[in-house]
Formats: sequence, C-alpha cells, structure tokens
Amino acid sequence: MSSQNILVLNGPNLNLLGTREPEIYGATTLADIETMCRAEAAKSGAEIDFRQSNSEVELIEWIQGARTGFDGLVINAAAYTHTSVAIHDALKMLDIPVVEVHITNPHAREPFRHTSYISPIAKAVIAGCGARGYVFALQYLLNSSIQSGNV
Amino acid sequence: MSSQNILVLNGPNLNLLGTREPEIYGATTLADIETMCRAEAAKSGAEIDFRQSNSEVELIEWIQGARTGFDGLVINAAAYTHTSVAIHDALKMLDIPVVEVHITNPHAREPFRHTSYISPIAKAVIAGCGARGYVFALQYLLNSSIQSGNV
Amino acid sequence: MSSQNILVLNGPNLNLLGTREPEIYGATTLADIETMCRAEAAKSGAEIDFRQSNSEVELIEWIQGARTGFDGLVINAAAYTHTSVAIHDALKMLDIPVVEVHITNPHAREPFRHTSYISPIAKAVIAGCGARGYVFALQYLLNSSIQSGNV
Amino acid sequence: MSSQNILVLNGPNLNLLGTREPEIYGATTLADIETMCRAEAAKSGAEIDFRQSNSEVELIEWIQGARTGFDGLVINAAAYTHTSVAIHDALKMLDIPVVEVHITNPHAREPFRHTSYISPIAKAVIAGCGARGYVFALQYLLNSSIQSGNV
Amino acid sequence: MSSQNILVLNGPNLNLLGTREPEIYGATTLADIETMCRAEAAKSGAEIDFRQSNSEVELIEWIQGARTGFDGLVINAAAYTHTSVAIHDALKMLDIPVVEVHITNPHAREPFRHTSYISPIAKAVIAGCGARGYVFALQYLLNSSIQSGNV
Amino acid sequence: MSSQNILVLNGPNLNLLGTREPEIYGATTLADIETMCRAEAAKSGAEIDFRQSNSEVELIEWIQGARTGFDGLVINAAAYTHTSVAIHDALKMLDIPVVEVHITNPHAREPFRHTSYISPIAKAVIAGCGARGYVFALQYLLNSSIQSGNV
Amino acid sequence: MSSQNILVLNGPNLNLLGTREPEIYGATTLADIETMCRAEAAKSGAEIDFRQSNSEVELIEWIQGARTGFDGLVINAAAYTHTSVAIHDALKMLDIPVVEVHITNPHAREPFRHTSYISPIAKAVIAGCGARGYVFALQYLLNSSIQSGNV
Amino acid sequence: MSSQNILVLNGPNLNLLGTREPEIYGATTLADIETMCRAEAAKSGAEIDFRQSNSEVELIEWIQGARTGFDGLVINAAAYTHTSVAIHDALKMLDIPVVEVHITNPHAREPFRHTSYISPIAKAVIAGCGARGYVFALQYLLNSSIQSGNV
Amino acid sequence: MSSQNILVLNGPNLNLLGTREPEIYGATTLADIETMCRAEAAKSGAEIDFRQSNSEVELIEWIQGARTGFDGLVINAAAYTHTSVAIHDALKMLDIPVVEVHITNPHAREPFRHTSYISPIAKAVIAGCGARGYVFALQYLLNSSIQSGNV
Amino acid sequence: MSSQNILVLNGPNLNLLGTREPEIYGATTLADIETMCRAEAAKSGAEIDFRQSNSEVELIEWIQGARTGFDGLVINAAAYTHTSVAIHDALKMLDIPVVEVHITNPHAREPFRHTSYISPIAKAVIAGCGARGYVFALQYLLNSSIQSGNV
Amino acid sequence: MSSQNILVLNGPNLNLLGTREPEIYGATTLADIETMCRAEAAKSGAEIDFRQSNSEVELIEWIQGARTGFDGLVINAAAYTHTSVAIHDALKMLDIPVVEVHITNPHAREPFRHTSYISPIAKAVIAGCGARGYVFALQYLLNSSIQSGNV
Amino acid sequence: MSSQNILVLNGPNLNLLGTREPEIYGATTLADIETMCRAEAAKSGAEIDFRQSNSEVELIEWIQGARTGFDGLVINAAAYTHTSVAIHDALKMLDIPVVEVHITNPHAREPFRHTSYISPIAKAVIAGCGARGYVFALQYLLNSSIQSGNV
Repeated sequence: MSSQNILVLNGPNLNLLGTREPEIYGATTLADIETMCRAEAAKSGAEIDFRQSNSEVELIEWIQGARTGFDGLVINAAAYTHTSVAIHDALKMLDIPVVEVHITNPHAREPFRHTSYISPIAKAVIAGCGARGYVFALQYLLNSSIQSGNV
Repeated sequence: MSSQNILVLNGPNLNLLGTREPEIYGATTLADIETMCRAEAAKSGAEIDFRQSNSEVELIEWIQGARTGFDGLVINAAAYTHTSVAIHDALKMLDIPVVEVHITNPHAREPFRHTSYISPIAKAVIAGCGARGYVFALQYLLNSSIQSGNV
Repeated sequence: MSSQNILVLNGPNLNLLGTREPEIYGATTLADIETMCRAEAAKSGAEIDFRQSNSEVELIEWIQGARTGFDGLVINAAAYTHTSVAIHDALKMLDIPVVEVHITNPHAREPFRHTSYISPIAKAVIAGCGARGYVFALQYLLNSSIQSGNV
Repeated sequence: MSSQNILVLNGPNLNLLGTREPEIYGATTLADIETMCRAEAAKSGAEIDFRQSNSEVELIEWIQGARTGFDGLVINAAAYTHTSVAIHDALKMLDIPVVEVHITNPHAREPFRHTSYISPIAKAVIAGCGARGYVFALQYLLNSSIQSGNV
Repeated sequence: MSSQNILVLNGPNLNLLGTREPEIYGATTLADIETMCRAEAAKSGAEIDFRQSNSEVELIEWIQGARTGFDGLVINAAAYTHTSVAIHDALKMLDIPVVEVHITNPHAREPFRHTSYISPIAKAVIAGCGARGYVFALQYLLNSSIQSGNV
Repeated sequence: MSSQNILVLNGPNLNLLGTREPEIYGATTLADIETMCRAEAAKSGAEIDFRQSNSEVELIEWIQGARTGFDGLVINAAAYTHTSVAIHDALKMLDIPVVEVHITNPHAREPFRHTSYISPIAKAVIAGCGARGYVFALQYLLNSSIQSGNV
Repeated sequence: MSSQNILVLNGPNLNLLGTREPEIYGATTLADIETMCRAEAAKSGAEIDFRQSNSEVELIEWIQGARTGFDGLVINAAAYTHTSVAIHDALKMLDIPVVEVHITNPHAREPFRHTSYISPIAKAVIAGCGARGYVFALQYLLNSSIQSGNV
Repeated sequence: MSSQNILVLNGPNLNLLGTREPEIYGATTLADIETMCRAEAAKSGAEIDFRQSNSEVELIEWIQGARTGFDGLVINAAAYTHTSVAIHDALKMLDIPVVEVHITNPHAREPFRHTSYISPIAKAVIAGCGARGYVFALQYLLNSSIQSGNV
Repeated sequence: MSSQNILVLNGPNLNLLGTREPEIYGATTLADIETMCRAEAAKSGAEIDFRQSNSEVELIEWIQGARTGFDGLVINAAAYTHTSVAIHDALKMLDIPVVEVHITNPHAREPFRHTSYISPIAKAVIAGCGARGYVFALQYLLNSSIQSGNV
Repeated sequence: MSSQNILVLNGPNLNLLGTREPEIYGATTLADIETMCRAEAAKSGAEIDFRQSNSEVELIEWIQGARTGFDGLVINAAAYTHTSVAIHDALKMLDIPVVEVHITNPHAREPFRHTSYISPIAKAVIAGCGARGYVFALQYLLNSSIQSGNV
Repeated sequence: MSSQNILVLNGPNLNLLGTREPEIYGATTLADIETMCRAEAAKSGAEIDFRQSNSEVELIEWIQGARTGFDGLVINAAAYTHTSVAIHDALKMLDIPVVEVHITNPHAREPFRHTSYISPIAKAVIAGCGARGYVFALQYLLNSSIQSGNV
Repeated sequence: MSSQNILVLNGPNLNLLGTREPEIYGATTLADIETMCRAEAAKSGAEIDFRQSNSEVELIEWIQGARTGFDGLVINAAAYTHTSVAIHDALKMLDIPVVEVHITNPHAREPFRHTSYISPIAKAVIAGCGARGYVFALQYLLNSSIQSGNV
C-alpha cells in the first residue's frame, strides 16, 4: 500500500496555532504538525498535501478538488466544524474516507462546540490527542501502524 | 519511557465483539484487539492489563483499583458511556490520563449515543477508527509513535 | 410448531410482585405468572425458561446467552426499560423475536417511564394487561391462539 | 362469563389494510381481522360489533353510543391516536374497559407516532403483534385465555 | 341595541354534557345552557342560534356561514380548541366578535389543554365559570349587563 | 343570597388604567371599574372592597387578610400573574372562590404573558372582556345574573 | 404524454378563497383557479378532477380513491397540512407523485404553520406563488413546460 | 411585459450538480439549468444573468448589486439557506421580488435543512421540482405561463 | 422512642471518601461517618446498620430487605441518585421514612446532578452539610434533637 | 465556639404557618419554630435573630444588613426561592455561610418549585425535615451536634 | 438642547456597589457614579434625578412618576432586569426614551442573566462599560458628545 | 494616554448603511460614522483604522492582524455576530479589549438576532445607540469622556 496521497485540511485560525491560547492548544505550530505528518506519511511511502485556510469557500473548493487524486482526507475544520453545512455538503460528494481531527476535546468545551457537521460523514473522529491526532489519522488512512493481520 | 503499565477496560457486550452485528462492528474479536494492544505496548516495553466486563460495578471497582500501579487508562465503556454517572465519578478520582475509545462513531448513530459521561474527564477521544482506535490510544499514552521533538 | 423454547426475563423489583404496591400492580406474584406461562407454553408443547434478576449485568448476560437455544424472548425489564442502553445493545445481538411486556401501562405513569430502550428493538409491546400480558406474549411467539389461516 | 358484547373500532385508512404498504402492515385485510375476532369471541359465547371509519366524528359518536350495550371496547384509532383530543374526551366518558391496539409498534416509527391520546385512558395497550393484537385484546376483555385462578 | 343575532357553537362531546364526568362538568345539560342563553338574549331583544356538533367540518361550515346574518359568535370548541387549525382559519374570516367559552378552566387540567387555537383570534375568553360562562359571553356581546355609562 | 362581601384586588400599573396604552387597554379608568363593580354588587345587596397596589407584598398581605370576612376574591394581578409564586401561595391558603380577571386576552400578547400562576388555583378565568370582566366575575361569585333554576 | 388525469384537492376554507382575508390571499377565487388548471391541463391534453372539501374524512377518502385512475395528485391541504396524520397516512398509500401547494408561504406566517405532514411524502412543494402555484404543479406533473431534452 | 432582467443565483456546491450524489440530485448539470432558464426567459423576451458561487461573500455582493438593473431574483442558496443571516440581510435590502428554489425537498431531508433564512423574505418557495423549479420561478416572475386574466 | 433500627446506605465510590477529590468532599472517611452515626444513634438507644456498595443491584436488594426490621432509611445513593429508576422503584415499596443525604450540594455542581430519582419518594433531603448531614438525618428519624414538645 | 450570632430569615406566607394548608405544612407555627431555634442556639451559647417578611425588599435589606454582626444565615425564602434573582444577588455579597431550609421537599411538589436561586450560593440545603430543618441548620452553623473529632 | 431633565434609576443591591464583589463590579460606588452623571449632565446644562431602590414597587412608582417632568430615563434594574414584568409594563407607559445600562456584560455571566424584560422596550442597551455606561447613556439622551453634523 | 491606535471593524452589508432599510437603520452612512470616529479619536490624539468587509474570512484575518499594533478593537460584526464561531475564535486570541457595537438593539428584533458569539468575549456591548454607539465605544477604549478621577 504505497504511493498514496492524502489531503490534510486545516480551518480558520489554525494558522496561529502555537501562538494562540497556548494553555488550551499547546506550543506546537501548524508547521510542526505538517512536519510530523510528512514524516508519518514517508514511513508508508505516501505523500501529503497539507493546507490551511481561514476561508470557508477555499476549504469547500479544496474538498471539491479532492474528488480525484487523493486517497483520503484529514480535516480539522476548526470553528467551521460547528457551523458549515456547505462543508458538510462538499464532503458528502467525496468517495474517499474522511477523518475528523480536533486538537482538543470539543465535548469538554462550550456547548456550541458539541455539534459537528463533519461527524455524520466522517469514518473516524480523533479529538483531544493534540497535534498527534493528525498522525493517528494518517496511520488510520495509511494502515501503517499495523504490520499484518485481518483487522 | 519504558516499563509503563496501561489498563485497558472494555464495557458491556464487547465480549461478543466480532460475532455481534458485524455490519456495524466488523469481524475483529476482543481477543484480536487484546493481541494488537499487547503488540503495540511491547514496542515501548510497556505492559497492558486488558479486561472486559458487562458489569457497571466491576468497571467502577477496576477504575478505583487503577489509582495505583497504572500510568494510563484506555476505556471503551460501550453502552455505559451514555448512562453511567458512577463511572464518571470513579474516573474523576484518577490522576493518570484517560483515553476514551469507541470502535464506531457514536455521533453517526442514535441520538442517545451522542452524550458521553466519559468525554468531560477524558484527555482524548478516539472514535470510529475501529479496533485500531485502541492502538492509537496506546500510542498517545505511551508517546510511542513520535521518535523525538517537543510535541 | 412444537418443542419451542422461550426465555422469559424479568427485571428489578419484580421479585416482590404481589407484595409491592398492590394498588398499582395487583396481588399476583411472579410465581403465579410463571405458573401461567408454563401452562400456556404446555398447550403448544413448548418450554419456557423463566428468570428474574435485579441485576442489569445478569440480565445482559442472560440475553447474550439466548443467542442459541431459544426461539423467542419475552422481557419485562421493569425500571431498566427506561435507563439501560446496555440491555438495548444486548437485545440487538439476538436473531430471535423479542416481546416487551409491562404489567401496567407506563404511558399512564410518570414521564420518565414514557421512554423505552426496549421498544425500538421489540417486535411487539404489550402493556397494561396485567400478568396476562405474559400469556399474550407467549401466544404471539408460539402462534398458539390461531388454529389456522394465513394471518 | 358469557354473552358479552364487545365493540371493536378501527380508524382512518384501516379499510385499506392488506393493500396498503404491505412491507409495514402485512397482507391481512380488515375483513380477515374481523373473522379472527368473531372466532375468538365465539369461543367465549361473546359477540362483537366490528366497525371502521375514516371519520373522526363517526368514531366519536360510536364511542358515545358505547356507553350502553357493550362490555368492552377495542380501539385501533390509527392516525387519530396521535392527534384527536376529541376521541380522548369521548373515551373518558365510558365506564367499560378500553384496550388500545396497534398493528405495528408506533414507538419504532416516526416521532409523531410516539404520542398517544388513547394511552392515558386505556386499561391496556397492545402494539406490534400484528392482526393478532386484536385477538389478545379480546382475550383480555373476555378473560378467555385463563381457565381459572385469581389472576 | 336590539334585534341582534348571536351564533352559539358547541364542539365535540358537549351533547353529553350533564351525563359526562359530572364531578368535572356538573349536572347542567346543553339544553339547560340553551335555555339560559335564550333567556339572557331575550332580555336584550336579541336572538340566538344555538348548535352543537361533534364534527370539525360542520363547525367550520357553521362558522363560514356566520359571515352574514350574525352580530357575534360564542364558541366552546371543546377538544377542537387544542387541535384545529382549520377552525382557527375559519374564525379568522369573520368580521364579528368571537368569545371563547370553556365550562371548566383548561389551565388547571392536562398540559395538552393549555394551548388554544381559538384564543389568538378571540376578543374575550371566559373559562371555569361553568354554564354561566355562556351568559357572560352573551352579555359581553349584547352589552346587556351595563345599563349606561361610558364604559 | 345577600350581604356578601367580595374583595377585588388589582395589581401593578392598573392605577394608570385609562391613561396607559389606550389602544390596548381602552379609556376606562380603575375608578370607573370600581363604580361598575359597586353598582353590580348593589344589585345583590353585596359589598365590595376594591383595592389596587403596585406592591407584591401588599397584595400578598391583602390576600392573607381575606381568609376571614370575605365570600369571594376577584383578582387582576396584572404583571405579577406571570411571575409571582408568592401570590400563588397566598391564594392557596384561601377557602373562598377566586376569579382571575384580565382586561385584555393575555394569550393574544407576548409569550411571557401566556403563563399564569393564578390560573391553577382559580375557579374561573375571564380575559379580554375589558372592564366588564370584573362585572362578570362578580356575577359569577354573587350568582346574580341568574334569577332561578338549578344551574 | 397525453390523456393524463390529475386529481387536484383543496382543503378547508379554500371554498371561500377570494372573499377571505384578501390582503393575505388575494382576490382570486377557487373557481378562477379551477379555470386556470383546466386551461393548463388542456395544453397537454390532460384532464383534471378539481375538488374542495372542508372535511378531513372526505379528503382522506378522495386520496384513497386516487389509487387508481389518476396519474398525479396536487394537494393544498390548507389547515390540515399542519395537523392531519390521517391525510399523511392516506397519501403514503399512493404510487402516483404528489405535489404540495400553498397559495402563501407558510414559513413567513405563524410557527404552527411551519410544520407539514404533507412535505415528507411530497415530491415537490410550491408555496407563495399564489394561485399560479397550481399551474406550476400541473406543469411539473404533466411535464408540459419543457419541449424536449433529458431534464 | 418584455425586456425584463432576472438574476439567478446559485450557492455552494451547485457547480458540481449532475456529478454530485446523482441519486439525490439527478444528472442535470448547472449548465443544463442555465440553458433551460435562458430558453424560458426568451419566451418572454426577458434576459437572465445566471451565476454560481461557493462563496457567501460573493453571493452577498451579487445580491447587493441587484438593487438596480434587475426585475427579480431567483436564488438557490444551497447550504447557505440554513446558515446565512448575512444573505438574509442582503436580500432584505432589495425591492424586487425574490423566489427561493431548491432542487430537492429540504423538509424530507435532515433536520438542519428544515430552517431557511431565505423563506421569511421570499415571495415564493419552490422545492423538490428538480431543475424545473427554476423554470417555474422564472414563469412566476415573468408572468409568462398565463396568457391573460386578472390572476 | 428507643431501640429503633436505622439502615444507612451508601452508593458508588463513597468507599473512597476522604481520599477522593478532598477539595470537594473533605478528608472525612466513610468509617468516620459510620462512627459519627453510631455515636448519634447510641444517644437514642438506637442501632444502625451501615453499608456501602458500588453495585446498583446490591443497593436494590438491601432496600428490598429493609421492608422488615428497620424503622427508617438514610440513603446517599451518590451517582445512582441521578440515573437509577430501579432504586426509585425499590424505595417506593418501603413503608418506613426515607431521608436522602448528599455530602455536597448537587445543585451547585454539574447539571446532570440536578435531577434526583430519590427526592420524589424522600421525606427529607439534606445536602451540603458534609458528613454531618448523616447525623441530621438520624436525628430527624430518631427525633433525638428535640427533648419534648409537639413539633 | 461561643457567643455566635445567627440570622434566621423567613419569606412570604410563612407568617401563616400552622394555619396554612396543614395537610402539607403541619400545625407548627412560626413562633414554635422560633422557640425551637432559640432553645437550640442556647445550647451553644449563641444568639439568634429570627425574622419573617412577606416583602422581597425587606428580605434583601436584612440580608444586606447581615454583612456585619452575624456568623451565619439560615434562610427559608419560601416562594421567593424560585423567583428572586435579587435575593440571590444580595446573598452573594455575604461572607458568612448560608443554609437554605424548606419545611417540605420542593422536589416532590410542582415543577416550578424545582428551581432555586438560593441553592447555587448555599453551603447546605435542608428540605422536608419540617420545622426541625431549622434546628439542623443551626447545628450545622454552630457545630453543636458534634462534641469532638476532626469532622 | 438645554435644561433637560433625566431620571436615573438603580435597582436592588446597587446601594452596595463598590463594596460588593469588587472583582466583578470594581470599587466605584454609586455615589461616584452619581457624581459622574451630574458632571456629564452639567456639560449640557441638564439636570439629573439620581435614585436607587431595592424595592420593585418603588421602582415601578418612580417610573410611573416619570411620565411627566423628564426627558429621558436611564435604568439599571439590576436583578429585576431578569424577573420583573411589572417594570416592563411600567416602562411601556412612558413616551420618553429609555436606556438600559449594566455595569458588567450580563451575557458573559449566568444564563438567567441572559434574558431582559427591559431590552424589548429600550431604545439603547449599554453593558459592560462599567460605571462609564451611565455617562454614555446620558450622552446618548442629551446628544452631548456630538458637536454638530447630520447624524 | 495619547497616540493610541484603535481598529474599527464593520461586517456584512454595513457598506450599504444609510441606503438600506432607513426606517430601521437611519440615514447615516458608514462614511459618516468613520468621520465621527476619526473626530472622536482626534480628541485623544488617537488614530483609528476603519474597515468594512462582507467577507467572514477578511474579518477573521483583520482580527488576527490586530494582535500587534492596536490598543483596542471596536467590532460591529452585523449578521456574523449570530453565526460565526470562527470570528469568536479569532477574537479570543487578542489581548486588547474588544467592544461589540450594534446600531440597533438586536434584542428587540428577530429571535435569531438574540444570540451573539461576540458577547462572551467582549468587554462591553453597546446596542441601539445608532451611529453614536461607535463614539461611545471609542470613548470607553480611549477613556476620553472622563477628565479625571478614580473611576
């Protein structure tokens, strides 16, 4: 299972990760996460396309663009998780598996973060693992943490 | 970071995993998961104590017992996730990190599975990754998938 | 349609039936109901296994055990009807038909008795017929009250 | 306990039973059910008056008329179960026992079928037993399935 | 202010007033109320047209017919008060004042009697005055209880 | 039925009646209403004690004082209708009948006026009849509009 | 696509269209709409059967009758839209396409007009187009406004 | 009524129409719809300006731009229908009539599609007519399907 | 009033009292509380039977057992307070007075601790008095803090 | 711990205790309770200041006045418990411990008595112990029922 | 625009401002605020009447009294903001503009402070500006911060 | 306190202020407001950066950019106030004080304008003061309306 291509999308305000509310989100920057993701992908000979946007429409169009050329999608839609039916609709058009990632555990935060328009169409949800949640998402999609077996 | 000890708890009906509603939960058995967990732990020189019970009280008492001798707790409380304040209270007594795991994504199922008494006290939540969610939980607790760095 | 085997399960506090709040539940004891059930089953040459437990876990494990050796399940889960997702999950694993029985009509009682985790997986619900609801449940499962025809 | 007279009322759209959504309601017609009911009543030497109407007002007036001459009422109010306070009020005027019957289990269907204006005044509720629910209702009212005893 | 014509409409089950649940509604019959209403109207030289129907459609059509020939409408819609948008719509077409009457106080009864589709279009609401509520409604419409003055 | 004594209580802001929002409440003043009430009471040889207060505590204490010396209570609690559990509690202590009056129909106004702490303990509710609602309330309590009969 | 037969049903109070609240519904009468519908149908060589009833039961039975002999159903159930589960049930029995029409836009009116028991079983919903909504519904069913193409 | 100019706006993900979830939306593309719209407009000598954007802000600014130069607006805001107060506000600034179009019937889909911020300011709503809903919207605005008369 | 026998029941996780979250619950252990209770009971010549269980079923069966041999029940059901209808049902069977005790004030904690299935059947509720709440409960049941009088 | 000074406040309608609804509140008067409180305080050499008011403002100002000169506050705010944010605000200004007392158990009464604006700021809540709840509250504040020990 | 007269009303517990919960409200006293207000008014040659009361009725009567002699009203109703329909009603009687002031931002505090009976009748709402909110309110009413221009 | 720099942000549709719904928003344009703001700032020797965007992402990025170089932020997020969690998240990253401004009082408008994602992170909220609310916000941030004193 080599040469796979995974799109990793990051939503609004994640460009400031590491500088923003470090007591909540920690000091890891988005560039750190990208590095971690590339390292993880490399283990499987896979490639990743790592992007961030504050724009709902840019995210929508990146998702639309992922209908071809990608084997999986990792998405941390940040605030749009809770408000964007349009991203939900774009994701529904994809045939590749989608993994929803959150750096913190939204269910331990404000009530308006308890609803997700991403969850109903996600294969998996990984929350609260910090930056490492992205690595787990890649492992899940690339099947890289399991050497063998029927799991 | 070697010789750690992780308790892995499984709640009601998970003893039937692999025979139960395979279209939802797949064919992996709980014994398969235990094997995967032991393999993952071995990579870090860690040990795991892997248990299942259909009994709320047994789970409570296992959690109480984990106040000493363990470095982390992975819990798939299954149905008790949504109904047990008593497990919530027992978990609050622990000083070690807790990771909540679900084989499927509860947010894509019935509304009564959308509430969790575990999430508010969990460090991380991993859902819908199938049996591999346990592996990710162990990696998170054992910090085993990251070779180095400040993450 | 002979030699069928039906499991009849009774939940918490039903061991006190006949002594408990007779103005609500009447004077019939659980032993009386067992006698009625055995008599009804005998008409069809069927056998019943009649049990009661105050323990959620015992009920769960009895239901798990019913995956083989039984042709139908009659369950009066009493208070657990309204609170046990775990019993719901156990029942979903069965391939045999399930009939939910209540001695009184829960919809004419407190609001917290208006929700049932059993109803969504039950073939039939019989409530308010008193102890005779068990007999009807058996007739339904054993098809014994209808001599012939295409119904 | 002979020569009793039971009124059996059927609400809107039940005239099409057997032709309507057979995957939900089966192929039994209302005439089949009437035959089953008459056969069941005959066992006890009882008579039944079996009627159907699509009209709320006709059902109300039949219920009003049942204040004399009947020993019990079986009612499948169909859609009016969930919307008719007027039928509720008419039923409250009766001194004879009322049994609510539904061919399917409304609690396993749309939310608007989860409320019943009949249940609060019914002695018993039998749902999901198919056409045989009527037979059980008659047995309940005619006490015919129990040979003896104090139940 | 003479020769006025008032329509008095009574809804479902009120034909049984006096025989029905006397502990709630008292022993006065609808005929008694009609007599009281006629006597009250006579004081003002007015006439009343007093009707009862169990049929929602008949009530609707009587209301439609009241667009001409009447100076006011008194309506006790009974159970339809709480369920009939169609009666609400019919009443909205009238230019004459409408008074809603209830023999008992619905707000002291079941919650489903706390909503009224009549109240939003009624000039006045009189509840819990027993049969005399009709008399007050007529006095209000006929202005008969006040001999003079600027009120 | 002569020499009865009725207490008529008026709540906050009713002292300004006639000057306040005449498009809603009309031009009748509270003094006008008192005059009407006295005239009505005089017909029956009854007396009324007519009071107004903007103070919740004064109303409570007037209600407490009405436990002796009065045969009935008419109360227009105005805004306190919707907020005062204390007035509700005071009214519950009375053995005399209570009639709730509102000049307008609260159910045709803002949602916060749709709840009443008075209604559950009132014998009768008269709303939307304008100032004349007080007269009807007195007639109801004094039984004065009916010359004879068994109603 | 010629000689089709369409049933057009109109619910309560629509018989008064054009005379009723013209500021909301306009001056077009139901006869005007029937004329428009017949003209539209004639363009396609289709026939329409145009009916109105204030009676829920009559509408139910007309719908039941439409199981044969019609190619489509246009229904403006008016007030019953929001209250009739029985009409919902009758419509579910049909195999022909159903179009829900409202002269005004119910979503811009009272909250109780925001729920529709018709919408869940309708192929299309046309609201707020005035009387012309019927014409669009016919065009939709008769496919008459499109000359050619695969749409 | 010639030379009118209609703006037709399409919201997020509609650029993929025909390729996206064809079992829900069919195979018609947005270009097909534009062709249909142009053909329909041509019948009335009208012109249309047909646009699509995934961007909420672009839609807002197009709506703002429609304050001059257009005689009507057809809008299928897709996912933004359910979330955009900003589009609602922009639409409120227009003096030209607005028609809301949906290809499918949102009321037969997920609950979060049951609310519309467009409906309260729309003259008409056309849903579930497929691509032809646009044609009906144009006919409504251009008055083109009616040859004559006062409707 | 001597030789009374009081059952004191403690629910899940209370075995860890004093070690668990001392900032919330303080340092008093359950053994300390037992000592206090025995001392208090001794003042009245009464005896207490003091038990703790993490098991819902054990609590149910202890309650069932208290139908004879005890003069009162003090229960701190801890987490089961908020979830156990079965304990509620068991308590309803008792004829002896029940006092509900909580060490802290649940109403000042999470919302899911604001509901109690014990309160509706308790004679008294004592919360937030710390370990001394047990003493007050015993005094209440043993009437020991009042030397005399008719209170 | 001697010479303490405790303020005991009583809210609306408690002046009538003993005469008011004795089937709910018993025959003890407020004077009886004052006597009991003085006796209890005397045991500890403490003094109490015992007051009652029907006035929300008087209670507020008494609470404001308690900022100096008192060591604790016992408050039975009666009906104001459920409605007074102003009393809540006044209590928040105090540095002394507050105990909320109710003679009956509000959770076993009407739903509007299930909310308390006092509970969130109270150290302890004692309900349903009758007049003796005041004694327990004093013991709690005066620490008088425990001779010694580290509790 | 000189010689204007503004009434400034302060509700319950504001008499303690500066001593009460300084971490929330700061150290400014109500006398400080009065001084600030007088200074601000003096700039415009206006006068202010500055009052505080803990009494709902006194506030109501001050508002009633403001119907003449005042050009504007500034009100910080404190806790009564959230509970007093009576103050709402009194304010509705005024023809002068009303500005609602809160020292803190209630929307960032407990949910019961998120509702205001003042906001629906206020021209402006100023919250969270501390004591200076009063100054802004005066400037707004006196138009004093703008020297000229067409705003 | 001179040379401060304040960012003033305006959300969607505010570019049309003065032309849009003047009966609600008045005739002042956004350019007028900018002029007023500059004049106000000049009094304190401060500068303002005044911007408007219809784009959520542009507003987010302007807020992100304000982490350095600004001493305060005034934001009228218009429609995004009620829907944008992303703007909420961006604002949370700022260390400078934020003042929320609305030209009208949203609480006196549609319910969907009663929720604000800005309020929980704002220091102050100023609504309904028209264009002058911006001036007050600047005065609050620049402390310019108070000459001296300890407030």
